[in-house]
Amino acid sequence: MIHPSAIIEEGASIGEDVVVGPFSIIHGNVTLGDGSVVDSHCVLGHTEPGLAPAPLIVGPDARIRSHSLLYGGSEIGSGLQTGHRVTIREGSSIGESLRVGTLSDLQGSCSIGNYVRFHSNVHISQASTVGDYVWIFPYVVLTNDPHPPSDGFLTGVTVEEFAVIATMSIILPGLTVGRDSLVGAHSMVNRDVRPGAVVAGTPAKDRGDASAIELRDGSGPAYPWRRHFHRGYPDDVVAQWKAEFGS
Amino acid sequence: MIHPSAIIEEGASIGEDVVVGPFSIIHGNVTLGDGSVVDSHCVLGHTEPGLAPAPLIVGPDARIRSHSLLYGGSEIGSGLQTGHRVTIREGSSIGESLRVGTLSDLQGSCSIGNYVRFHSNVHISQASTVGDYVWIFPYVVLTNDPHPPSDGFLTGVTVEEFAVIATMSIILPGLTVGRDSLVGAHSMVNRDVRPGAVVAGTPAKDRGDASAIELRDGSGPAYPWRRHFHRGYPDDVVAQWKAEFGS
Amino acid sequence: MIHPSAIIEEGASIGEDVVVGPFSIIHGNVTLGDGSVVDSHCVLGHTEPGLAPAPLIVGPDARIRSHSLLYGGSEIGSGLQTGHRVTIREGSSIGESLRVGTLSDLQGSCSIGNYVRFHSNVHISQASTVGDYVWIFPYVVLTNDPHPPSDGFLTGVTVEEFAVIATMSIILPGLTVGRDSLVGAHSMVNRDVRPGAVVAGTPAKDRGDASAIELRDGSGPAYPWRRHFHRGYPDDVVAQWKAEFGS
Repeated sequence: MIHPSAIIEEGASIGEDVVVGPFSIIHGNVTLGDGSVVDSHCVLGHTEPGLAPAPLIVGPDARIRSHSLLYGGSEIGSGLQTGHRVTIREGSSIGESLRVGTLSDLQGSCSIGNYVRFHSNVHISQASTVGDYVWIFPYVVLTNDPHPPSDGFLTGVTVEEFAVIATMSIILPGLTVGRDSLVGAHSMVNRDVRPGAVVAGTPAKDRGDASAIELRDGSGPAYPWRRHFHRGYPDDVVAQWKAEFGS
Repeated sequence: MIHPSAIIEEGASIGEDVVVGPFSIIHGNVTLGDGSVVDSHCVLGHTEPGLAPAPLIVGPDARIRSHSLLYGGSEIGSGLQTGHRVTIREGSSIGESLRVGTLSDLQGSCSIGNYVRFHSNVHISQASTVGDYVWIFPYVVLTNDPHPPSDGFLTGVTVEEFAVIATMSIILPGLTVGRDSLVGAHSMVNRDVRPGAVVAGTPAKDRGDASAIELRDGSGPAYPWRRHFHRGYPDDVVAQWKAEFGS
Repeated sequence: MIHPSAIIEEGASIGEDVVVGPFSIIHGNVTLGDGSVVDSHCVLGHTEPGLAPAPLIVGPDARIRSHSLLYGGSEIGSGLQTGHRVTIREGSSIGESLRVGTLSDLQGSCSIGNYVRFHSNVHISQASTVGDYVWIFPYVVLTNDPHPPSDGFLTGVTVEEFAVIATMSIILPGLTVGRDSLVGAHSMVNRDVRPGAVVAGTPAKDRGDASAIELRDGSGPAYPWRRHFHRGYPDDVVAQWKAEFGS
């Protein structure tokens, strides 16, 4: 299951039933859980020259697609799924079942909850905190430097549970995007987003409650999305959501 | 012409005079036309684990640059040219002479016409329809989900013939960008763009007719661009354009 | 120090104490300075089929991270540092100590000064001119075509010394971003930015002098940033900056 052209360094701990594709490299500081599948041209456990390798722990059933790169020094829960050309740097603390799309770049030193969904080409700066069940769509950037370039002033963004940030929006440093809120596409957010709000524009303005947005088929509110969107979540979690909304 | 480090799986159909660079992989479900050149570190015919491989058909004279990835399950006309690190996913129906720049990501299940030009870092969502001779510039996203995340509501964008979408603009789901229109840079388009219009802003507003924009040298209207821009198109097509505008 | 799977073409000039990682390719037209470290899956000296290879000269102490690609036909000063998946095309004239982040794409035929900092996912079009000590943040695009697509009208952007362009902004073709100025995040710049100004919005408006922005700890102005930010610059340069501001 390990392609003969792949390089598995001595010391790497590879679980049962793991697949590693051609031209991939698993460094000696990596622990890769059972049932994981790593495509071709990947690097797991990258360490900068001159630094001591730090452990990279990837839970079971990971699916790491081609040309992706994970640094040493992070711990990632079970069920990771990456797209292609994904970068996850050191110091990332990542919960279960993260899905992170093609070209996305997690700059490290961040905290990511469970069942988080990053679509393609998302940029998560250092010092970001992302809660459980958050959705972030393509070309979104979470920033961290209030006076770029500055030193010692980095303040990451906090995105709370169930929040959604739509395509090509940025969140300025140190802000909080509240629980169940929605940031509209192509927005520049320069103040905190209150829980349950929808904001949009440059700069983004409060447009009311996200729960006022109706699904196109007239079946009810589009937000909080867990009212109607259940694909990919565990049965017990979905049961809880259904109970919450009486559906 | 096939580098010894490249992996050509049994079953792959490789045309005459094909070049495949080092560390590239051509899976067994691939048909690659005569005269094609594939750089290093590419993957053609990717299939997700557990799925049956679907054919990837790439027409003759393809030029696929390094680190690019094409899934199985698409059909691509002759003369494809990709930049580096391009992704083309399954279910893509692509006409002749597509040029798609570095880092661009076609998410699959889309229909792309002939002589389409995607510049670098363009994101084409599933269910998009792009007509012949369209130009899309860097960091443009065609979206598809009116209430992200939603299920069963995906509605792709339609971009009609000769339309131009400038840098870092997004088009909201289900909209049509009309024939010969121009979307200005850094715009958020939230309604249909009428044929021949120029729109710009967040949200984008109708600013009149694109044909009112003059070339800087005073030689005439800049749009429709086929009045003056002919590089890379077939002679008979250019002759038709010249006749159309009496030049 | 050269991994056995790496391909070093005949004619390549590799300095002392150079490291080249697995599955990387150094073409015969490359001169790579002493003490350089090239990660895995890189390509140095790429030449398009049918063209004569032009020299790629990379100064000493380069640090080129994985999956990066440098074309032949450029000259790059000492101390280059790239992130992962960086592209630098032909005709680039690059000074000393460029740092360019993951996924950034320099399209070539550009002039880049000394000690320039491009963060991740920056797009530098052909014909751009970037002065010494400039900072450009993620998802910024310098454009070059006033009437896309056009031919013979390309006019690049000029970014003067010490200027800062924040995340997800674009600069329209032919404009100058003045010395010591600041372009706010998510802006669309459609006129020249005067030296020392801060501009922001879509389109960007002049918001006064950047020097009026205070650091959050009350220690003084945030701009020009060289008043307080010195990390990574040579001692003699920093001494000069300190003298300039009497600190």
